Amino acid sequence: MNEIKVFCPATIANLSCGFDVLGLCLDNVGDEMIIRKTEEKGIKITKIEGATLPLETEKNVAGVALLAMLEATKPDFGFEIEIYKHIKAGSGIGSSAASSAGAVFGANELLRNPFTRKELVQFAMQGEKLASGNAHADNVAPALLGGFTLVRSSNPLDIIKIKSPDLLYATVIHPQIELKTSDARSVLKQNVSLKSAITQWGNVGGLIAGLYTEDYDLIGRSLHDEIVEPLRSVLIPGFDLIKKAAYESGALGSGISGSGPSIFALSKGKENAQNIAKAMCAVYDEIHLPYEIHVCKVNDEGMRVL
Amino acid sequence: MNEIKVFCPATIANLSCGFDVLGLCLDNVGDEMIIRKTEEKGIKITKIEGATLPLETEKNVAGVALLAMLEATKPDFGFEIEIYKHIKAGSGIGSSAASSAGAVFGANELLRNPFTRKELVQFAMQGEKLASGNAHADNVAPALLGGFTLVRSSNPLDIIKIKSPDLLYATVIHPQIELKTSDARSVLKQNVSLKSAITQWGNVGGLIAGLYTEDYDLIGRSLHDEIVEPLRSVLIPGFDLIKKAAYESGALGSGISGSGPSIFALSKGKENAQNIAKAMCAVYDEIHLPYEIHVCKVNDEGMRVL
Repeated sequence: MNEIKVFCPATIANLSCGFDVLGLCLDNVGDEMIIRKTEEKGIKITKIEGATLPLETEKNVAGVALLAMLEATKPDFGFEIEIYKHIKAGSGIGSSAASSAGAVFGANELLRNPFTRKELVQFAMQGEKLASGNAHADNVAPALLGGFTLVRSSNPLDIIKIKSPDLLYATVIHPQIELKTSDARSVLKQNVSLKSAITQWGNVGGLIAGLYTEDYDLIGRSLHDEIVEPLRSVLIPGFDLIKKAAYESGALGSGISGSGPSIFALSKGKENAQNIAKAMCAVYDEIHLPYEIHVCKVNDEGMRVL
Repeated sequence: MNEIKVFCPATIANLSCGFDVLGLCLDNVGDEMIIRKTEEKGIKITKIEGATLPLETEKNVAGVALLAMLEATKPDFGFEIEIYKHIKAGSGIGSSAASSAGAVFGANELLRNPFTRKELVQFAMQGEKLASGNAHADNVAPALLGGFTLVRSSNPLDIIKIKSPDLLYATVIHPQIELKTSDARSVLKQNVSLKSAITQWGNVGGLIAGLYTEDYDLIGRSLHDEIVEPLRSVLIPGFDLIKKAAYESGALGSGISGSGPSIFALSKGKENAQNIAKAMCAVYDEIHLPYEIHVCKVNDEGMRVL
């Protein structure tokens, strides 16, 4: 096999209570990448469609992630990468993670899988480091492993994959505003009250328990964030209205996707997810704010060969 | 049935990362109680052996818990209670919880179970309120439900029971010193760093995942507490040495039981648990500190009729 085409799914990080540790993988929203073996060693990014991004390997997240992988395994050939972006940069659903993870996943396939998907996370994280200055796994882990992922520890890296309950759907609305990750981080406080922290880790425990037992109500009861969401949500127009609309249309829970500005809602079954989408759209239609909307099953497989 | 004898197990609350939300139930360490129907309405505590505790219903945790239950269901008879204490007060393994939970569990049996075990928690919590000023469920929940319990929320009460992996054992050493709960609480800080809080909820998630998947190593990797243990452990003589001895003898994890002074270690299999006990005892023997030692399987059944 000399060429492979891969689907690089979008992801939702943080998931309310799970700030900096939890993420999930989306179905049917994602980029496509073609990775091709070349006789010449090294990495060339030959084509990027759908976004204006650097073609220089060292300045592109996909290039940097694959470089990290090639340092660990030194094949006697090189790679060419084509990227077809569908996930908008800065949307808060893991655009850079999709490219970083896609590059290492595709090349690993062409190399006949010397690395497990879990082992690929560390390489993909180097792409995230280039994108945000921080080698985090919140998005690359669910993109590679699918379902839900818990980053128990970043150093040493300890990632737990949790299968998604079969009927779990996500609705994601992306208001077309620019919200810089750096701004979203600057509103955070360095300290939190012990009381809020206890509430938060009770909810993280509840969410994990709800996922293992496929208890949708428990998942819903656990999807709260009293630490980060109150600070960040003010940066997102209509956040409270969108969330209210989601709950009134059957959402189990709703919150900020990643560092925003996208807002997600989880629900049981496709019909609920579609109703939530309608209700969310109506809110932004009312205030004439342009948006993109996605209705997706949670993707338990993750990254896949097309 | 007019009389019942119940086993009221000891419990470990907090469990390192799970401060204020997690607990587990112990086997073969606990009190016994006899609950008897009486023609006369009301509650009489007729006998307490093994401890000096008030016989007045309103001043005894068992009495207060049962009073709360009788307010919710008004039987046309009363109850007599005998308490045989084996769990030492102030040991940090749920002495008051065992009595509070035992009273409502036994009376519920005599009433032919109008309440589920989960519903009994709220009544037993009233005993904890008398004991510590705080109606918490950390110990009464595992005493009643067995296994591990997660108190996702106290208000409204939301408790999740998690089955214990079959080979999980606890070793508990109780140094014979007095450590008041109020002192153990006064060393806590009202605020914690966001960074530590994230580490903690990553570990809570890891511990819950480890329990559901019976992944003993993951349970071990998750049993850390960088928020409360560093503050409280200085109140417990030889804490660091005991913990080190436990790890060197095969412990998956080790920490403060409840608010101390008991120290627990979890391990896989009875032999490890016994080796850990020997190593812990050797530490206190060396410094001539009297102690009690317990080796118990985690008790997945909880409170039981004898």
